[in-house]
Amino acid sequence: MDVVNPTPSPAASSLLDKVRNNRLFEIIVVSVILFSALLTGAKTYDISPTVLTVIEWLDYSITLFFLIEISIRFLAEPQKRQFFKSGWNIFDSLIVIVSLIPIEDSELAFVGRLIRIFRVLRMVSVIPELRTLLNSLIKALPQLGYVALLMFIIVYIYAAVGTTFFASINPILWGDITVAMLTLFRIMTFEDWTDVMYETMLVYPLSWAFYISFIFLNAFAFLNMLIGIVVNVMEKENAEQWRRDHADEPTITDLSKQIEELKALIEQNQLNEQPLKKGA
Amino acid sequence: MDVVNPTPSPAASSLLDKVRNNRLFEIIVVSVILFSALLTGAKTYDISPTVLTVIEWLDYSITLFFLIEISIRFLAEPQKRQFFKSGWNIFDSLIVIVSLIPIEDSELAFVGRLIRIFRVLRMVSVIPELRTLLNSLIKALPQLGYVALLMFIIVYIYAAVGTTFFASINPILWGDITVAMLTLFRIMTFEDWTDVMYETMLVYPLSWAFYISFIFLNAFAFLNMLIGIVVNVMEKENAEQWRRDHADEPTITDLSKQIEELKALIEQNQLNEQPLKKGA
Amino acid sequence: MDVVNPTPSPAASSLLDKVRNNRLFEIIVVSVILFSALLTGAKTYDISPTVLTVIEWLDYSITLFFLIEISIRFLAEPQKRQFFKSGWNIFDSLIVIVSLIPIEDSELAFVGRLIRIFRVLRMVSVIPELRTLLNSLIKALPQLGYVALLMFIIVYIYAAVGTTFFASINPILWGDITVAMLTLFRIMTFEDWTDVMYETMLVYPLSWAFYISFIFLNAFAFLNMLIGIVVNVMEKENAEQWRRDHADEPTITDLSKQIEELKALIEQNQLNEQPLKKGA
Amino acid sequence: MDVVNPTPSPAASSLLDKVRNNRLFEIIVVSVILFSALLTGAKTYDISPTVLTVIEWLDYSITLFFLIEISIRFLAEPQKRQFFKSGWNIFDSLIVIVSLIPIEDSELAFVGRLIRIFRVLRMVSVIPELRTLLNSLIKALPQLGYVALLMFIIVYIYAAVGTTFFASINPILWGDITVAMLTLFRIMTFEDWTDVMYETMLVYPLSWAFYISFIFLNAFAFLNMLIGIVVNVMEKENAEQWRRDHADEPTITDLSKQIEELKALIEQNQLNEQPLKKGA
Repeated sequence: MDVVNPTPSPAASSLLDKVRNNRLFEIIVVSVILFSALLTGAKTYDISPTVLTVIEWLDYSITLFFLIEISIRFLAEPQKRQFFKSGWNIFDSLIVIVSLIPIEDSELAFVGRLIRIFRVLRMVSVIPELRTLLNSLIKALPQLGYVALLMFIIVYIYAAVGTTFFASINPILWGDITVAMLTLFRIMTFEDWTDVMYETMLVYPLSWAFYISFIFLNAFAFLNMLIGIVVNVMEKENAEQWRRDHADEPTITDLSKQIEELKALIEQNQLNEQPLKKGA
Repeated sequence: MDVVNPTPSPAASSLLDKVRNNRLFEIIVVSVILFSALLTGAKTYDISPTVLTVIEWLDYSITLFFLIEISIRFLAEPQKRQFFKSGWNIFDSLIVIVSLIPIEDSELAFVGRLIRIFRVLRMVSVIPELRTLLNSLIKALPQLGYVALLMFIIVYIYAAVGTTFFASINPILWGDITVAMLTLFRIMTFEDWTDVMYETMLVYPLSWAFYISFIFLNAFAFLNMLIGIVVNVMEKENAEQWRRDHADEPTITDLSKQIEELKALIEQNQLNEQPLKKGA
Repeated sequence: MDVVNPTPSPAASSLLDKVRNNRLFEIIVVSVILFSALLTGAKTYDISPTVLTVIEWLDYSITLFFLIEISIRFLAEPQKRQFFKSGWNIFDSLIVIVSLIPIEDSELAFVGRLIRIFRVLRMVSVIPELRTLLNSLIKALPQLGYVALLMFIIVYIYAAVGTTFFASINPILWGDITVAMLTLFRIMTFEDWTDVMYETMLVYPLSWAFYISFIFLNAFAFLNMLIGIVVNVMEKENAEQWRRDHADEPTITDLSKQIEELKALIEQNQLNEQPLKKGA
Repeated sequence: MDVVNPTPSPAASSLLDKVRNNRLFEIIVVSVILFSALLTGAKTYDISPTVLTVIEWLDYSITLFFLIEISIRFLAEPQKRQFFKSGWNIFDSLIVIVSLIPIEDSELAFVGRLIRIFRVLRMVSVIPELRTLLNSLIKALPQLGYVALLMFIIVYIYAAVGTTFFASINPILWGDITVAMLTLFRIMTFEDWTDVMYETMLVYPLSWAFYISFIFLNAFAFLNMLIGIVVNVMEKENAEQWRRDHADEPTITDLSKQIEELKALIEQNQLNEQPLKKGA
């Protein structure tokens, strides 16, 4: 686990450190998260009040368990500041702290329930492979964001054009710009888009050009760009992994240095010989 | 920002140049474009005439702002001819100039509205990352165009075959070649394509082969080619970026030259020694 | 145009050769093919008998034009055997020859019409970029074929399982193995697949596993493999193009040879020196 | 065929070995598997009892043929333990052994039928290209598995949130967590997802954010990751294939060694000369 701090921990927290890095501890944490997820799922079924009470109690003990677990992680950390520099630690702490707040109000009960649901996300913070995946997605985010912005601009323009022409035909689909954007997002996913098109084609027979140009731009060109970005980010990471694996192999730069050394050696040789020969 | 002209601007336009390259100026321009987009969206809602009048006035001031902004950009340009060599500058100027034309005719009011909508596209001309994205798409266009042409030929052939056989079954979907092409485009997006197929299968039970061969060719083979092209264009740009980043590292050609130099050195060495040895 | 034969043509056919390689001739051929495509499309509309007669006559002249064009190509070819070694030439000739057969029978009229439609495909044989695209698809065919076979096997197995369990629920969708395979192909394109699923879930509540496992295998895993193959084939061609463009740059093998030469030179140097030194 | 054992087989089993490696034998095996698949398909049609009896007998003979074929493979194997180390051999043997168990019980007749269907999968174990494809998919499985787990976590969270808010609106789609997960999987495939959305938007007008964020996360981001993984696995295999094909060409490491040898040679040269020169 790469959560482990590389600096040696002081003797005082050595026991906690052992617990934190223990394989069994990790498995128990994952199991409790899974169990918490199952409880969350179970509550969506019609269950008797007795079972519900049991679930409530189990829920409290899970919160308690998470509180202890986070405390161990925090106390085992030699430099307490480092602990809050990791986004995952902050996320874990927040989830646990918010779970502790007692919510009696029925209005806010929803919020409490949502927080319990988000505890499942702790799976990501605990399993390193999932963190790696999410990190590679986060790396691609700036690029993905710009494609998304471009797509949004195009959706916005088409929505403005759509409302201008089609608002009177079907106000539910094209009434105002937000509704029109939702309709266009739907067209982007090819969901019953012909129904939308056939309706406007009765009034504007050439409106198919509006839909087809939109599909070509957003669904074909830009969705493919999203694929291209994700594929490239993964390729880059593979290439870096390959370079790390072959780090002991010489590079072209190393070769160039070797040849330079050779040159220096020959030149040295020549310099050594010259005076001798002159002497001869 | 790469809008900045690399050639040093004369002292006369130095103030304008400072304004143009000012970070704050850029942020203001983006904000005004965003505000203009919001206004365009706002007009699609049912709003009171008073608000509409306010919007109209805001609209005029945005046009005025854009006029001033373009003028600054133009005046700050030391070589005026260079200004119109950039497609984006021409686009920006056109949008502003056309917005200035007063349109009273209700027929042409639509056109005026559309131009105001297209002002949102100025986002692309102002944000360099979006320009880069669009440029990489434009680079892929010739290749994408040929795939699109191939897809169009296949759609055309299938449409001609479709009208020949299915026109009598459902004239709305297969009546003539344009309608049939629209139907095939719909099948390509998998939108309720089985309804179209089941209908013709009642008359021609083997017509599923027509649809499935079309889906394999156009939706599987050629749509994947579009993905392949976009992925490759992005990869090429990444590779070029990598080469630019590692431009100071030696290449195999450099190595080859180094070895040649070494060879020349040794040969020189030999030539120097030979006469000496002969003399000895 | 890469149709051009590299061997010098004899003086006798030099005029025909000039015609064949003429840029104008090419443009005329493409135009006639386009015009032929438009005629094919025009015939699908309700048109007056007079126009139809005109179209018929235009059709004959196109066939005649194609006959002349193919003859020029054939006669301009210095080695007649080479002509029929190109698949595109055979395709072109076949289309023209079959168009010449007069079809009066109304039964076979369909066939004549289809052949006229396939004349549009001559666009591919005339425009080199489209030929290149098709060739790269043909290169990917063996690999694509094996993925398609694997997908077919999986569809077959699921269809057999589907008919075993669901034939009594909906004989139209699951009655026999061909119908079930069509239903599964439809599920693969996500076309109203939930309607099919909800129906069988009424009898077998766990049948969602059947559909979801099928979608994961065929729609997610194998359709992605198709993308992977197409992307790789295109990348390979790009890499080959890159190698052709950089053919004059030295390779690692060239470097290795250079170093070997250097070694030989130094060893020669040593051999030349040794006897001298011994002599000394 | 790579089924062939590389170690030389003893003289005793040489005849069986010849049979096993015989091209004709392979073709016969593939044909029998194909025939078995066709029989499986034929049984799904309404057929007369006579034909059914014939099919039953053909079925028994196929089982017998497979039994003989597996026996030949097993006996031809010089080291019997090696035979069961191949997963495909175990799969083949299992299919044949289970087919031999006579099933009279109508309850278990289904199972017998399913096993006969799975015999088609023997195509994969017999055709090496299909095995290669499946192996490359299996290589990608760990990575695909983690993406699938991440997608599952997100589906689970959205399902829990969905049931919390929408269970009262449509219990069929959002009643409990399993049903909600199925609904979300459906939304991921864009299958009539707007119907689901429009229904909940009547109660929660902002619920479109729930659907669109889910589509962006799971359908756009993570499905693209699946594509990225498959493309990368295929690229890696292509790169390895390329390295195998160019194994005789020198690598940068080889070059480095060559230069080292050259250096040693020159240094040796210098050492040889030095004493001479000293002597001189």
